[in-house]
Amino acid sequence: MAAPHSTAHSAVATVGAVQRSELVQDSDGWKTISSTHHFSNDHLEVVTEEVRTPARPQPRSWTIVRRKAAVIVAPMTREGKIVLIRQERIPIRAAIWEMPSGQIDDRNADDDEMKQIALRELREEASYQLAKDGELISLGHYFSSPGFTDEHGYLFLARPVEPCPHGERDEGESIIDCRAFNLDKIRRMIAANEIRDANTLGIWARLIAGGHLALGSGA
Amino acid sequence: MAAPHSTAHSAVATVGAVQRSELVQDSDGWKTISSTHHFSNDHLEVVTEEVRTPARPQPRSWTIVRRKAAVIVAPMTREGKIVLIRQERIPIRAAIWEMPSGQIDDRNADDDEMKQIALRELREEASYQLAKDGELISLGHYFSSPGFTDEHGYLFLARPVEPCPHGERDEGESIIDCRAFNLDKIRRMIAANEIRDANTLGIWARLIAGGHLALGSGA
Repeated sequence: MAAPHSTAHSAVATVGAVQRSELVQDSDGWKTISSTHHFSNDHLEVVTEEVRTPARPQPRSWTIVRRKAAVIVAPMTREGKIVLIRQERIPIRAAIWEMPSGQIDDRNADDDEMKQIALRELREEASYQLAKDGELISLGHYFSSPGFTDEHGYLFLARPVEPCPHGERDEGESIIDCRAFNLDKIRRMIAANEIRDANTLGIWARLIAGGHLALGSGA
Repeated sequence: MAAPHSTAHSAVATVGAVQRSELVQDSDGWKTISSTHHFSNDHLEVVTEEVRTPARPQPRSWTIVRRKAAVIVAPMTREGKIVLIRQERIPIRAAIWEMPSGQIDDRNADDDEMKQIALRELREEASYQLAKDGELISLGHYFSSPGFTDEHGYLFLARPVEPCPHGERDEGESIIDCRAFNLDKIRRMIAANEIRDANTLGIWARLIAGGHLALGSGA
């Protein structure tokens, strides 16, 4: 995605609300030569950067959308079901079934703070909470579209979860439904293209690869 | 991601090189009230739109990054291995192992054209081709980050594939390695956070859910 500089804004400094996270920094032969700001608001920043990479001597020009990182949580009930929310997603003009998730405002958030955000999103989006004997298991991170954005999500398995006693979902959210699905139903929703967002597909791949799901022979 | 309009550009018309694909259009209660352009180049466009959704009477303001759609291909050899490329990804300042992929320039591309793009990327990025008795199997599509972008990828399984007879990888690409991995190795790379991009995790979830992989009991 090599792109020419198309504004006359000054180089080097980034002015947006979104700063590069610790995971996405120059090191091991990566070097940012210049950074030209195009647009920013509270949620994203667009820059074109000249970057020298480890494998190529000539710097390359690349347009990048910087975003806050996110947490994504797979909530598993004691019965082994997974809780999904159905959310209206304006950029794609559709409501989809997906895992609860939320953005991380503090780019220096440590592991404990990320887990707190995961539990908050679980409460606010799904109205579920971790059981007293429950655990939150880290499944690593992933990049949503590394060809154009530094956005990444930290993945967690929460199990077992149970409904909040007095819980109501946050009315400010775009969530229109919430349900617990058994694993084979989710597998069929994935195969049938009904589940079709990177968060949910990505965490599913990690859950299966890590041996966290007791799937039937059809899996 | 509700965001105020922050430029004085005229509303309604979109002027970028990136138009909405057929998959992302107003219908079934979705209605675009206005669209304010912020930035565009050949690869992305940033707009803030007022959108009425099926579930809420009041329009919401949302900042959206529009991108071309992509094809992603899982190339499987006759021996049942999957071919991955190792690519330098400037937005995340890292080289990662991932499935071959490429953007679709024509937003009206039909299924046949998408398959041709899949085969072209297979040749150019991995220097592999579909065997004479091979088939290209559609695994549906997915959205990389529906909270802020309309970007989506069409997923294909190509099998069996074989090395191109006189093939050389495209020198203009950022690809620094290419290798065939057995399925259990890929599973372990996913579990260990070594494979960490949405394209590869997403197509892996679809391959497993659709019963396309003969994985051992450890899967």
